[in-house]
Amino acid sequence: MLRMYDLAGAEEARRFSPYCWRVRLAVAHKGVDMETVPWRFTEKAALAPSGQERVPVLVDGAAWISDSWAIAGHLEQRFPEAPSLFGPPPGRALTRLHAVFGDVLVGAIARFILCDVHAHLDARDRAYFRASREQRFGATLEAVVADRDARLPAFRDSLAPLRATLKAQPFLGGERPLYADYAVFGAFQWARCTSRYRLVEADDPVAQWRERLLDAFGGLARAAPGYDA
Amino acid sequence: MLRMYDLAGAEEARRFSPYCWRVRLAVAHKGVDMETVPWRFTEKAALAPSGQERVPVLVDGAAWISDSWAIAGHLEQRFPEAPSLFGPPPGRALTRLHAVFGDVLVGAIARFILCDVHAHLDARDRAYFRASREQRFGATLEAVVADRDARLPAFRDSLAPLRATLKAQPFLGGERPLYADYAVFGAFQWARCTSRYRLVEADDPVAQWRERLLDAFGGLARAAPGYDA
Repeated sequence: MLRMYDLAGAEEARRFSPYCWRVRLAVAHKGVDMETVPWRFTEKAALAPSGQERVPVLVDGAAWISDSWAIAGHLEQRFPEAPSLFGPPPGRALTRLHAVFGDVLVGAIARFILCDVHAHLDARDRAYFRASREQRFGATLEAVVADRDARLPAFRDSLAPLRATLKAQPFLGGERPLYADYAVFGAFQWARCTSRYRLVEADDPVAQWRERLLDAFGGLARAAPGYDA
Repeated sequence: MLRMYDLAGAEEARRFSPYCWRVRLAVAHKGVDMETVPWRFTEKAALAPSGQERVPVLVDGAAWISDSWAIAGHLEQRFPEAPSLFGPPPGRALTRLHAVFGDVLVGAIARFILCDVHAHLDARDRAYFRASREQRFGATLEAVVADRDARLPAFRDSLAPLRATLKAQPFLGGERPLYADYAVFGAFQWARCTSRYRLVEADDPVAQWRERLLDAFGGLARAAPGYDA
């Protein structure tokens, strides 16, 4: 069976990595079973066979694959008979912008929820998380999020491309969700799993799309420990 | 032959509408000939058969089609044997984000080049343009662009999704340009046709991609009257 190293918090059931969520949903899309292994930031040694130190890591037989984009490509090749994550070429190339948009969104959302993420971490991970994120953002976690209310309108403005797309069609992939959706949704699910902060209003087409993805695959994402902001 | 109403400046050869450029390149992609009709903002009556007042308007036999997205869909259906603009389904749905990203970019770039656009307009169009844009932006054209140098770093940051995508592949569509590329490029070509302002540095992957599109179709976009910023 597929196995994924999946970032967990103090509670083992709290799985919040935005990139692991991409894989969770991509695997569900393929209709394949997968076991997840709870993993903490400080357990870098466990990922050694992947040649790097970050999750998600997918273990498929003898293959250890890291990086959500590479894992999605692996799933697509490995399960060609299952519903496609990208559609035929050039679907995967077109999906690159969505994936990168999702990456940028993780950075943007971090500035709202860093302290909430920290509060959910396993005690062993807290010092590492604080040090690495404070270096990345050049400020204490508390200072990064301090003015989040003031920055909220600009954040919501930055979702304009997403919002306009989702006014025109129910999913980024069109009538049905594709990897393009999971890549962006992961960032929102990360926030949902760790924070009560309301990033988008309920009547925002982005929020309505998020609801549809929370319902996908029998409510897979909705069933995860999280908050309804 | 296809005919497109195409926004022109004081010089008839200066065609700068970002949305008309999308269509110009989409038609070139299909390998089809098209005649363009120079049009000014104040010639709304000429577009009456399209049922609205904005260019691009494509005239294909008895059909008058407006809106660049709808025109691209029309071209795809009308010339199914020619190279696809989107790839097979769900290519067009996936391209929606690119098109919307291009729309948002037009709004962002406007804040840098509004005065330059105004300077290139036909005398008959200037009062209309000033009044409509000053209402839209809530300030005089001069006030909108006044702090553009200060806003340039944030603008360049906003290109992050584009930049990361174009580091990974030569075109938004992958190995070859697709409508996804034309929809975003139109905004840059609008700037190139009207302004010397340097929106991106030459070593930016976005600038390098723009160069590739300027070269596409025998240098179609590069041959247009414009500036090398």
